[in-house]
Amino acid sequence: MANVIGIDIGGQSAKLGLVTPDGQIIGQCVVSSLQNSIDEFLSVLTEAIMNLSAKSTAPVTGIGIGVPNGNYHRGTVEYAPNLKWAYVDGKPAVINLAHLISEKTGIPVRLTNDANAAAMGEMTYGIAKGMKDFIMITLGTGVGSGIVIDGKIVYGHDGFAGELGHVCIVPDGRKCNCGLNGCLETYCSATGVARTTRELLVSDSRDSSLRKYDIDTISAKEVFNAAKEGDALAIDIFKYTGRLLGRAMADFIKFSAPQAIVLFGGLSKAHELFHDDMVKAMNDNLLKVWQNKVQVLYSSLKESDAAILGASALAW
Amino acid sequence: MANVIGIDIGGQSAKLGLVTPDGQIIGQCVVSSLQNSIDEFLSVLTEAIMNLSAKSTAPVTGIGIGVPNGNYHRGTVEYAPNLKWAYVDGKPAVINLAHLISEKTGIPVRLTNDANAAAMGEMTYGIAKGMKDFIMITLGTGVGSGIVIDGKIVYGHDGFAGELGHVCIVPDGRKCNCGLNGCLETYCSATGVARTTRELLVSDSRDSSLRKYDIDTISAKEVFNAAKEGDALAIDIFKYTGRLLGRAMADFIKFSAPQAIVLFGGLSKAHELFHDDMVKAMNDNLLKVWQNKVQVLYSSLKESDAAILGASALAW
Repeated sequence: MANVIGIDIGGQSAKLGLVTPDGQIIGQCVVSSLQNSIDEFLSVLTEAIMNLSAKSTAPVTGIGIGVPNGNYHRGTVEYAPNLKWAYVDGKPAVINLAHLISEKTGIPVRLTNDANAAAMGEMTYGIAKGMKDFIMITLGTGVGSGIVIDGKIVYGHDGFAGELGHVCIVPDGRKCNCGLNGCLETYCSATGVARTTRELLVSDSRDSSLRKYDIDTISAKEVFNAAKEGDALAIDIFKYTGRLLGRAMADFIKFSAPQAIVLFGGLSKAHELFHDDMVKAMNDNLLKVWQNKVQVLYSSLKESDAAILGASALAW
Repeated sequence: MANVIGIDIGGQSAKLGLVTPDGQIIGQCVVSSLQNSIDEFLSVLTEAIMNLSAKSTAPVTGIGIGVPNGNYHRGTVEYAPNLKWAYVDGKPAVINLAHLISEKTGIPVRLTNDANAAAMGEMTYGIAKGMKDFIMITLGTGVGSGIVIDGKIVYGHDGFAGELGHVCIVPDGRKCNCGLNGCLETYCSATGVARTTRELLVSDSRDSSLRKYDIDTISAKEVFNAAKEGDALAIDIFKYTGRLLGRAMADFIKFSAPQAIVLFGGLSKAHELFHDDMVKAMNDNLLKVWQNKVQVLYSSLKESDAAILGASALAW
């Protein structure tokens, strides 16, 4: 008998889970991922791994990691704009993360893109159980994606497939951290909602409870709360977000014709505020063969369990 | 020993080839596909199949077909806007083409999307030989695509994957035959080039040899000839087409991270006029991990041989 550790690394924090062979998470911890250097991040993460391992009654034989811009083939994190510890000389760099962690812990490490890990978790234990063709879209600080075709994660020629957060949905649109313009993630992530809010508070003259916040630091959470209390401007922000996301989803369907699109991540918890507009925009932008046929589902796994479980599947 | 027949059905014509087990096309013929009913089309196609079969020294044991909107799983052509014989009551309908041809000829029939057939041909006999991850884009009357991931054609949940010609590249852009707006095919096909020309002849006041043509019937071929003779307006039309296509290709790469994009079809023969702008736009719109790394190739197979050979591969 043995256990593994699954790790879900995001822009704000890293969540670790000790996982049994039958997919039970028997221990968890969360650490910050806001460090400004790989050495600091490694030190924090390694300590957490060691603490969690110490709780395991069976040997920990592997570590699986889901991380933005993670490369399955190479074990690297490459040019991740949202991970400050992955910057070198002020610019996103290539970090040989699997190797570094393995060296520090003595445990073999596999890693993949965070959204691929979530898709694996959802396919193995969650809402997409039994599905062979689906697309997982993670709506968090950024937008990630994991694409499953014929029962397998799509890695592509170089291991980087599934960067749907950086598909252009508004030509010459908002500047993205990645350097491009008009990326899906600049509109349909938590930070995208905040950007839309900042734009609308300037261009729209309607009264709104959102005007009491500092325009430069307003967050999606505050917009969510305002919308829930009936603020018309806040409601429109989520409807706009839904329409853009739905149009993007329609284009993804034209690529791989999935059975379902599974939404996941912080912003997806606000789906009651954008679901209808998103699904309508999706169907309005689909060819007749797909209209009203592609399911839109939400992750059924608790919090970051999908990513932790998916990452753990890499470690076996 | 046995032979098969590979058929490439397009908006203007159907090309048939008698193919040996080692991939030699030993007989060919072309018939019109402009008929207005399935009965007329079937009658013409069946006669051509029978004539070609009669030339075979070995029994013809199968027919493989590449056709726009072809469904591999169901053997149907579904809602094909560019095939007039596939309309019922003035609207694109579902035609059980594989079954109908098999019934008339007594030969088993398999079919797929025309671009998938071309991709299979290119992967088996052409420029993509040995590649496991590539995207084939056919630039003809419309725009089609065949996506190969890990050595296999992507069919998706319902058999319709790979409709990249209908991805939206200009939100609220040109009306497409499919009913949507801003589809890649309304800009980057032969008909798209003609539409760009019509728009530019109105909005751009420059002198141009294109002004001698009837604006309503001008074709991509005439624009090509003018560009080759140095007409500045005609040259700009191809550069514009290239920029839009390159931007779209960048988004496709974000999905499946292919080793190469292979271009095919009538318009691709004009590539000297748009290649540089297309490749620049593609790289300008790619994440750093892919910049200057994805090959752009052109079909190496003669005329419609790729589609005929690919379709024939279905029949074995």
